[in-house]
Amino acid sequence: MSIRVGIVGISGFGGGEALRLIASHPSFELVYAAGESSAGSRLVDRFPGVPAKLAELLIQKWDPAALPPLDVLFASLPTGASADALARVPKDVKVVDIGGDHRYVEGWVYGLADIWPTRIEGQTRIANPGCFPAATLIPLAPLLADGLIEPGNIVMDVKTGISGAGRGGDSKFGYAESNENLIPYGLLKHVHMPEIASTIERLSGGSAAGLVFTPHLVPMTRGILATIYCRGEATTDRCLDAARRFYAERPFVRVTDKPPQTKWASGSNLAFVSYAADPERNLVIAMGVVDNLGKGAAGQAVQNANLMCGLPETAGLDGAPVWP
Amino acid sequence: MSIRVGIVGISGFGGGEALRLIASHPSFELVYAAGESSAGSRLVDRFPGVPAKLAELLIQKWDPAALPPLDVLFASLPTGASADALARVPKDVKVVDIGGDHRYVEGWVYGLADIWPTRIEGQTRIANPGCFPAATLIPLAPLLADGLIEPGNIVMDVKTGISGAGRGGDSKFGYAESNENLIPYGLLKHVHMPEIASTIERLSGGSAAGLVFTPHLVPMTRGILATIYCRGEATTDRCLDAARRFYAERPFVRVTDKPPQTKWASGSNLAFVSYAADPERNLVIAMGVVDNLGKGAAGQAVQNANLMCGLPETAGLDGAPVWP
Amino acid sequence: MSIRVGIVGISGFGGGEALRLIASHPSFELVYAAGESSAGSRLVDRFPGVPAKLAELLIQKWDPAALPPLDVLFASLPTGASADALARVPKDVKVVDIGGDHRYVEGWVYGLADIWPTRIEGQTRIANPGCFPAATLIPLAPLLADGLIEPGNIVMDVKTGISGAGRGGDSKFGYAESNENLIPYGLLKHVHMPEIASTIERLSGGSAAGLVFTPHLVPMTRGILATIYCRGEATTDRCLDAARRFYAERPFVRVTDKPPQTKWASGSNLAFVSYAADPERNLVIAMGVVDNLGKGAAGQAVQNANLMCGLPETAGLDGAPVWP
Amino acid sequence: MSIRVGIVGISGFGGGEALRLIASHPSFELVYAAGESSAGSRLVDRFPGVPAKLAELLIQKWDPAALPPLDVLFASLPTGASADALARVPKDVKVVDIGGDHRYVEGWVYGLADIWPTRIEGQTRIANPGCFPAATLIPLAPLLADGLIEPGNIVMDVKTGISGAGRGGDSKFGYAESNENLIPYGLLKHVHMPEIASTIERLSGGSAAGLVFTPHLVPMTRGILATIYCRGEATTDRCLDAARRFYAERPFVRVTDKPPQTKWASGSNLAFVSYAADPERNLVIAMGVVDNLGKGAAGQAVQNANLMCGLPETAGLDGAPVWP
Repeated sequence: MSIRVGIVGISGFGGGEALRLIASHPSFELVYAAGESSAGSRLVDRFPGVPAKLAELLIQKWDPAALPPLDVLFASLPTGASADALARVPKDVKVVDIGGDHRYVEGWVYGLADIWPTRIEGQTRIANPGCFPAATLIPLAPLLADGLIEPGNIVMDVKTGISGAGRGGDSKFGYAESNENLIPYGLLKHVHMPEIASTIERLSGGSAAGLVFTPHLVPMTRGILATIYCRGEATTDRCLDAARRFYAERPFVRVTDKPPQTKWASGSNLAFVSYAADPERNLVIAMGVVDNLGKGAAGQAVQNANLMCGLPETAGLDGAPVWP
Repeated sequence: MSIRVGIVGISGFGGGEALRLIASHPSFELVYAAGESSAGSRLVDRFPGVPAKLAELLIQKWDPAALPPLDVLFASLPTGASADALARVPKDVKVVDIGGDHRYVEGWVYGLADIWPTRIEGQTRIANPGCFPAATLIPLAPLLADGLIEPGNIVMDVKTGISGAGRGGDSKFGYAESNENLIPYGLLKHVHMPEIASTIERLSGGSAAGLVFTPHLVPMTRGILATIYCRGEATTDRCLDAARRFYAERPFVRVTDKPPQTKWASGSNLAFVSYAADPERNLVIAMGVVDNLGKGAAGQAVQNANLMCGLPETAGLDGAPVWP
Repeated sequence: MSIRVGIVGISGFGGGEALRLIASHPSFELVYAAGESSAGSRLVDRFPGVPAKLAELLIQKWDPAALPPLDVLFASLPTGASADALARVPKDVKVVDIGGDHRYVEGWVYGLADIWPTRIEGQTRIANPGCFPAATLIPLAPLLADGLIEPGNIVMDVKTGISGAGRGGDSKFGYAESNENLIPYGLLKHVHMPEIASTIERLSGGSAAGLVFTPHLVPMTRGILATIYCRGEATTDRCLDAARRFYAERPFVRVTDKPPQTKWASGSNLAFVSYAADPERNLVIAMGVVDNLGKGAAGQAVQNANLMCGLPETAGLDGAPVWP
Repeated sequence: MSIRVGIVGISGFGGGEALRLIASHPSFELVYAAGESSAGSRLVDRFPGVPAKLAELLIQKWDPAALPPLDVLFASLPTGASADALARVPKDVKVVDIGGDHRYVEGWVYGLADIWPTRIEGQTRIANPGCFPAATLIPLAPLLADGLIEPGNIVMDVKTGISGAGRGGDSKFGYAESNENLIPYGLLKHVHMPEIASTIERLSGGSAAGLVFTPHLVPMTRGILATIYCRGEATTDRCLDAARRFYAERPFVRVTDKPPQTKWASGSNLAFVSYAADPERNLVIAMGVVDNLGKGAAGQAVQNANLMCGLPETAGLDGAPVWP
C-alpha cells in the first residue's frame, strides 16, 4: 500500500532533492507539490528528468487549507516561513520540517535519526536537523557519550558547498564570484550555533558554552566537511572504537580510519566519521562528512519519515553515492 | 531469482558507475569484481560509500580462466585491452563490453539500445556504444529515419566533461590545468568518427563521408552536449514531431522544446534531444545531452544487460537525475 | 604626463577588469569611478586588493553633468543604459563604450583594434566590439581577406565562461545551478549576430546571410572559445599562412598550429587563432580564443584608448596570461 | 641596467608563475630557463601567451656547471632535488630557493620578507617560505609580537587550492576526482609543521609544542585560507590594531575588518589578514589569505629578489588581483 506524500518548497534545492528521493522510494507516492516560484508549472517543466509517472503533476501555490489527502508532508521553506504555514496542516498528516523553524520547539521532536531513532518512531511532527548540526553532531556523539572529550572546549571548522546557501538571488553566490573562491562567514555568531550547543549539552550533560563554530563556503555544489578540534586524552583507536560501537546498528553512519572526503557521500544519505588524536597534545580531531542536501536535508527527512511511518529506515535511501 | 553479475575494470570511472547501478539493481547481484590498480582491496576500500552488503567483496586480479559462475559480465577496460581478455570468457556468460574494442566487430551486436532494442534481446555479446556516439546518434536518428537532413553534410560540435578522458595519469587532466580551461582536441580525426559515420549510414542508407566531428573538453566532471549542424528544410516542430514519434515507446529518451543542459541528465541513463531549425537557411540544429558515464557508458550497459536477460528495460535505471 | 581616466560601471565585471588594467597602466591615472550598486563606497571596499594609491577613491553616482576634468572615459554599462548616459559627456572627453549600445551607430567608430587599428587613432568615440565578435572575427578576418572561405556559409559554435553573463541576479547563473552544467542558449537569434554578420560583410564584401551562431555557457569564470565551421578548399597551412601575414605586425594576435585553449589567454588581452582544414571535405575549421573580460571587453577597451591617445598600443597590456 | 635572471624548474606551477612575474618586471631580464619535462622546447611551446620578447628562449636541461652569466637564479624544484643542485651554483649568483630544501639551513636566510625584510637585503642565498607558513605566520606575527595569544596553544585549519599539490601525476589530483571534493590530509604530521613551529618560536620566544595544523585540498586552482584558533583575551579591535601597526610600512599585507576571501589575492603578491575575537571565550581567530603561487611561492620569491638586489620591494609586483 502506498503512502501519500507531498512536498512544499519544491522549487528550492532541498525540495528538489526530496523529490528525487521520493520518486524512487518503494512506498511513497508523490501526490502533491507546492512551490512559490514554480506554481502553475508541471514538475517536468522544472525537473526535466523527473520520472515519467510524475511528469504531469501540477505544482500548486501553497495553501494548507487546500491540501489533498496526505499521509506525509515534507516542508522545505525558507527560515521564518514555516512556523505559520505548518500550524494549519491537519494533525493527522505527518510533517517533516526540513527548514529551521521548529528545531527545539515544543510539540516538535528533533529528528537526529542516526543518534535518537526511537524518539522519532510514530511521531507526527519532526524538525529535521540543519546540515551543519548533522555534519558535526554525528562525529561528536560517540565521544561525548563516552566522555572522551570536554564538551566545553570544542572548535568546529566547517566547510560547505554552495547549495547550502539555498537557491537564487545574491550575486555573491553567482558562479563568477563563488568559483575559485573560499569564503569564511558568520564568525562567532552563526545561526546554527545554539542548535549545535543544545544538542552537545543533551549528549554530554555538560555545558557547551565554549563552542566555536566557523563556517566556510567552498566552490563546490554539494558536501560538508566538519573538522572539529577537541580536548581529550583518548587515542585515535579509542575514538574509532567508540564510534564503531555507538553506530554498530545504525545503517547510514560509516566509521573510517582514513580522513573522509566530501565526494564519498555525494548524492547519498550517508555520514562518514573519522578521528585523529594525539594524547600528548591532549587533542582529538573529529571529522564528519555529509552531503548537505542528503543527510543534511532531504535524505535525513526521508529517513525520519520512514521511522515515523514504521517503514524500514533505509527504504528509498540505499543508493550508493555518485562517483566521480 | 537473482542474476549473478561481475565487473572487470572496476577501478575506472565506467566500472565505478556500473558498480553504483548494479548495487541498487533489483535483479542483479554483484559476485565478482576485478581491477588492475585495485586488485587485493575490498570494494569498501575503493568505494567508501558502497552498500554494506558489498563492502567486503575482494577485488580480484582479472583472470578469465578463474571466473566464478556468472550470468553477466560488464567489461570496462582501456581501449585495446578487451579483445584478448574477453575472448576467453565462457560462451554462456553474457558480456557487455563498455570499452571500444568490439564495436562493429563480427560476433558482437552493437548495443544502441534506444534505437535498436530488439537486436539486443537475448544476445550474449554486446558492444556498448561510445559516449560520443550515444550523444550524437540519438538526436539524429529520427531526422535520418524521416529523411529530414542530408546524411552527407553533418557537423558535430561536441563538448564533454573530463571524466570522459578516463581516470588517472596525464597532468593535462589534472585539476589545476583543466579547471577554468576549455580544450578542443582530436580535430578531423577523432577515434569515434568511424563508429558514428557507420551508424549514420545504417540509419539513413546514405553516405556520411562529409561528417565533421570536433570534441572539446569542458571543465566539469560529467556530461556531454552535442550541438549538431545539419542541412535540411524541416521546421523545428517537424523535427520535434519526428523525434516524439520515433521515441514514443522508448523510456530513456526525452524530447524537449528547450535546449537541453547537461545537468538535466546527471547521474541518470536519460538522453535529452531537442532541435532548432530555420528552413530559410536550410538549417537544422540537433542537440543531444547525456551523462557520459550513464547513457554514455554504464547506464547504457545495464540497459543492454536488462534486454539480454529479458528483464524490464528500466530495471535499476529509474533513478531521477541529481540536481543541483 | 599622465592621462586622466574615469570608469563608469565599476561594479560590474567589465568595469572591474578595466580598473585592474588601468591601475597598472604607465600613462593612465584613474581619477573618477562611478557605479550604481557601489556608489558611496571607496574603491577598496569593493576591490580589497586594489593598489594603495587608489584605495580611498570614492565611487560616485553616475552624473555626466558632474564629471571632473577627464581625458578618457571607459563606460561599462548594461545594454540600453549607455546611449543616453554618454550623449551628455563633453565632446573633448574621449569615450570607449564597452557596452553594446553604440556598435555600428553613427558618430561612433567600431573599435576592432586588431583588424582596423588606424581607424581608431585619434578618434573620440569608440564602440568596443562585443566579446563574441572579438572571438569570432579575429580568426575569420584573414580567411575572408584572402577569399579562402565562403562568407555566406559560416557556422559558429561558441562557448563562453559565465562572467560573460554579467554580474548578479538570476539564479540560473548561481553557482549550484551553473557548476557541472553546460547550457546552450539564444539559438538562431542571439543579440550579437547582426554585429558579427555586418563585420563579415565589411571584411569580405559578400553577404553573411547564412550565418549560424550558437552560444553555450560553460562552467568557468573567464574565457571564450569559438569553433567556426566554414566552407573552402584551402589547406591548414594556407590558412595559418594567411593569418600569420595578416597579423604579422599586430601585437596581440597569436597564430598557433595547435588548437588553442581558453586558459592560454586568461587575464590577458591576447587572442589566439588556429585552423584545421580538409580540402577533400571542402572544410575549414577556424578557432579563436580570448578572455571575454580581456580582449572581449576591458583589454580591448584599453587598447582602443591607447590608439585614441597616441600611446603605444601595448601600454599597460603586456602582462602574460595567468597560468594555471 | 637590467638584472640577468634565470629560472630552474620552469615546467612546474611555481616556475611558471615566476616566469609570468619576471616577464613584466621592470628590472629583470630572463636569460635562462631550465626544466626537466620541457627541456628542448622554446618558452612559447610551453607558455603560448608568453611575451614575444621571450618566446624563442630555449628551455635547457638543468646543469649548474653550464649556466650563462646570471645575477639571480630562481629555483623551483621538487622537495629533495634542490640541495645538491644549488650547491654548485657560483657564489656570486644570488639564489632564491622556492622549494623546501633550504628553510632553516645554515648559510641560507629564511625569506619571510613581510616580517623580516632587513634580514634579506643584500643576501645571496634566500630560502623562500612555504605557502602554508606564509598564510599562517603573517596573520599570527602581530599577535605574537604583542603577546596577545599563547604560542603553545594554536590550532591551524588551512585550506588550499589544488595547484599547491604541484603539477602532474597522481589521479587523486585529476579533475574528475578533485572537482566537487574536499579532502583533509596530512593530519597531525604535515611536513610544514616544523617550519611553522620554529617561526612561531622565533616570533614569540615561547614554545609552539602544542601546534595543531590540518591542511585541506579545496576544489579550486589557486588560493589559501588559514583559519587559526588561538587562546587570548584581546578584543577584535585590539588584534586589528596590532596588525595595522605591525604592517604599517609593509606594502603587501592588507589588514581588513571583514573575513578575507581567497579570490581577493588571486594572481597577486598580497596577503590579507583579519581577526575575530571573543574575550569571554578566551578566543582569538586569526585569518590569513594568500595566493599559494603568489605570496606563497613566486611572488614572495620576486619580493625577496628585489630586496637582495636593492630594488624597490614592489618592483614587478604591483599588479592588482584578478577578479572575478
